[in-house]
Amino acid sequence: MPAIESLSHLLSMKKLSNERIMHLFATAKHMEETDRLPSYQGRFAANLFLEPSTRTKSSFHIAERRLGMDVLHLDDAASSVTKGESLYDTLKTLESIGVDLAVVRQSETGILQECTKGLNLSIVNAGDGCGEHPTQSLLDLYTIHEHFKSFKGLEVTIAGDLKHSRVARSNAHALKQLGANVTFVTKPEWQDPTLTDQYITMDEAVDRCDALMLLRIQHERHEQGASVLSYLDQFGLTKEREARMGEHSIILHPAPVNRGVEIDSDLVESSKSRIFTQMKNGVTVRMAVIDALMKGEL
Amino acid sequence: MPAIESLSHLLSMKKLSNERIMHLFATAKHMEETDRLPSYQGRFAANLFLEPSTRTKSSFHIAERRLGMDVLHLDDAASSVTKGESLYDTLKTLESIGVDLAVVRQSETGILQECTKGLNLSIVNAGDGCGEHPTQSLLDLYTIHEHFKSFKGLEVTIAGDLKHSRVARSNAHALKQLGANVTFVTKPEWQDPTLTDQYITMDEAVDRCDALMLLRIQHERHEQGASVLSYLDQFGLTKEREARMGEHSIILHPAPVNRGVEIDSDLVESSKSRIFTQMKNGVTVRMAVIDALMKGEL
Amino acid sequence: MPAIESLSHLLSMKKLSNERIMHLFATAKHMEETDRLPSYQGRFAANLFLEPSTRTKSSFHIAERRLGMDVLHLDDAASSVTKGESLYDTLKTLESIGVDLAVVRQSETGILQECTKGLNLSIVNAGDGCGEHPTQSLLDLYTIHEHFKSFKGLEVTIAGDLKHSRVARSNAHALKQLGANVTFVTKPEWQDPTLTDQYITMDEAVDRCDALMLLRIQHERHEQGASVLSYLDQFGLTKEREARMGEHSIILHPAPVNRGVEIDSDLVESSKSRIFTQMKNGVTVRMAVIDALMKGEL
Repeated sequence: MPAIESLSHLLSMKKLSNERIMHLFATAKHMEETDRLPSYQGRFAANLFLEPSTRTKSSFHIAERRLGMDVLHLDDAASSVTKGESLYDTLKTLESIGVDLAVVRQSETGILQECTKGLNLSIVNAGDGCGEHPTQSLLDLYTIHEHFKSFKGLEVTIAGDLKHSRVARSNAHALKQLGANVTFVTKPEWQDPTLTDQYITMDEAVDRCDALMLLRIQHERHEQGASVLSYLDQFGLTKEREARMGEHSIILHPAPVNRGVEIDSDLVESSKSRIFTQMKNGVTVRMAVIDALMKGEL
Repeated sequence: MPAIESLSHLLSMKKLSNERIMHLFATAKHMEETDRLPSYQGRFAANLFLEPSTRTKSSFHIAERRLGMDVLHLDDAASSVTKGESLYDTLKTLESIGVDLAVVRQSETGILQECTKGLNLSIVNAGDGCGEHPTQSLLDLYTIHEHFKSFKGLEVTIAGDLKHSRVARSNAHALKQLGANVTFVTKPEWQDPTLTDQYITMDEAVDRCDALMLLRIQHERHEQGASVLSYLDQFGLTKEREARMGEHSIILHPAPVNRGVEIDSDLVESSKSRIFTQMKNGVTVRMAVIDALMKGEL
Repeated sequence: MPAIESLSHLLSMKKLSNERIMHLFATAKHMEETDRLPSYQGRFAANLFLEPSTRTKSSFHIAERRLGMDVLHLDDAASSVTKGESLYDTLKTLESIGVDLAVVRQSETGILQECTKGLNLSIVNAGDGCGEHPTQSLLDLYTIHEHFKSFKGLEVTIAGDLKHSRVARSNAHALKQLGANVTFVTKPEWQDPTLTDQYITMDEAVDRCDALMLLRIQHERHEQGASVLSYLDQFGLTKEREARMGEHSIILHPAPVNRGVEIDSDLVESSKSRIFTQMKNGVTVRMAVIDALMKGEL
């Protein structure tokens, strides 16, 4: 195995080499299969979710507990941080009281990078505004890799609100770095100028892609009535389109799904769908990340 | 011991045979007395309380932890479910991330039954609107059984807001099934047409009943000033009435008590009162339920 | 070692003898250094924070978990208590379901004393309105003692909003009992008539004190714009003042710090500052308190 760069935090996908990603995947697979998990008993994780996220928070909680860590929940820390205390001071406090790992979701893109200076605890970015959400990216990629065993030459289409997605950019970047070919389906007003790749239609996508990554419409209140139907028709995965997808192709979605908007409700648990598999993989991928951080590998 | 029906969930009292109920009570008694509790270490319980309930949630938490389970709290899941995600999708998510047991309180009567289809985790109904709350029923019945050792021929009166009570109907059904004679005290506007039994006055009740089950007034804001005093006088347990109760009779209330409304404040910890005993029993009864579900018995 | 008074609760600093305080400090020091912590596995702590406090709650959580206790969080109990249930009934409920230790923050000064009657669980006051917050006092004193090894003849200045501080009075009382000389810096409108000691200016304070205890401005919204600058100039610790402090003197603040108000932001992590050391010590001091309560010593 080649030498892998050392990291103390997981803030962005951009810092991760292909070797590091594949090593995390190997650990995650091992976590799933072993009877003897590593134990970090006596070490403390703090889940600092300044924006709500039942799903991601629960996934991290289970990952931390399966590794024997104790878990602090700091949901109401939002008020402290709002009351003028900086995120740095909150994290410095956690370090002082003996916390080893902070999992942070908050709305300011890029702010965590500054906070790592001089702090002696590991930080995982669990979503920073419209920035990154690296463990979501990793679980998406892991789910693709689990199925196809390789990214080389894979056709991946990312469909939806590229502009407000925390993972579209990271996934596109990492997929290309790993050797996949990435195309996009979106509305003109959701195009992201930093993604210079080819835009295609949903009908073109289903005919060619191996993996179709649907994005969640974040602001579903903007999509109501006629507009919801129209979204499914134009940009969503209908049954008719799903039937045209290749035999070995798969469907991904970060959830929660807006059933009948991004995807026909009947397809959520269809044979091609990996939506609930992604959630399952999220736990083992997060265990792999935490294991690497606690070992000082990352 | 006769064969006991197998269940995967505890959604309603209606599914429980007398044998099953008595078997749960035997397990609960054992849980209270043993030094060696069964251990479900490594298994995860999710407490999904979409409506607030400090008392029930804490009781389940302690029951789960005493059995070695890990506990996820999903109080803010309310917002996810409100944001259009169905309860089914939330429970499917919990199953996907490795949760074995979901304890659910939410407001829609009967909805849990639909959600159990195709889900590979055990569900306990911890209150569904005006529907059922089976572990509350079981702890009420257990507390009566602990004192009288049998239900045969027992005179039980249920007093209060029958219409909005989650447990009055379940308790009445189960008590009769177990051989008790059940009467009711209530205001005309709180009568429940599905309860065809005899209505009596509070004065008649205290003279004849072995167990007096007071219900909590749910909407205490409707009972203020003169009306509060009048409630205690007409439908509540005054000291004068308590003095007329039989020597071996007992008083139950699901708590929290509105002191001076359903019952004179001085009687809450009186010798006949089993109010805090009910809370204590709630933990062991819930341990028995969880044990049966984790063993695949229920 | 002399005989030490026995207590079942920690509600106030006033009940603690010098011997008890020094014994707690010895235990806290031991907790910090040992590899073999006492274990209270199977015992339950309930953290009942009816007013928000991320910092104190997290510190107690870590202290409880490091001692092997299980932890119940009852943040939303606020609504139950508000809904007319008395604090006594809430605590009686916790006792009934098997809780051994209740850590309580709520707004009514002195109310906990009444609640301890007839309750068979230990209570720690974690802040009662403008009353006391004894574990904060203990961690402040411990941090001073850790540095100076003795309180005899020590010059301590307490600076800030004496009137609304939960710890100023307790600290002043205990410091004098332990042999220190205490002076105060404050605005005329924040003077506390029960503190008869000498008031001095901040400039006098930095020239003479060994330990400078800054208080947090609770109502920071009253101090804005020009007034914030003026507070730092008149009553806060500027860099110029810090430079005049004695070589071995130290700075304390209960946090969160209003940077640039009570203290120049650059001084928060300066060599004299013990602000993050206080947080670290808070965990071990709380472990010592819990250990004494669980042993039945306190």
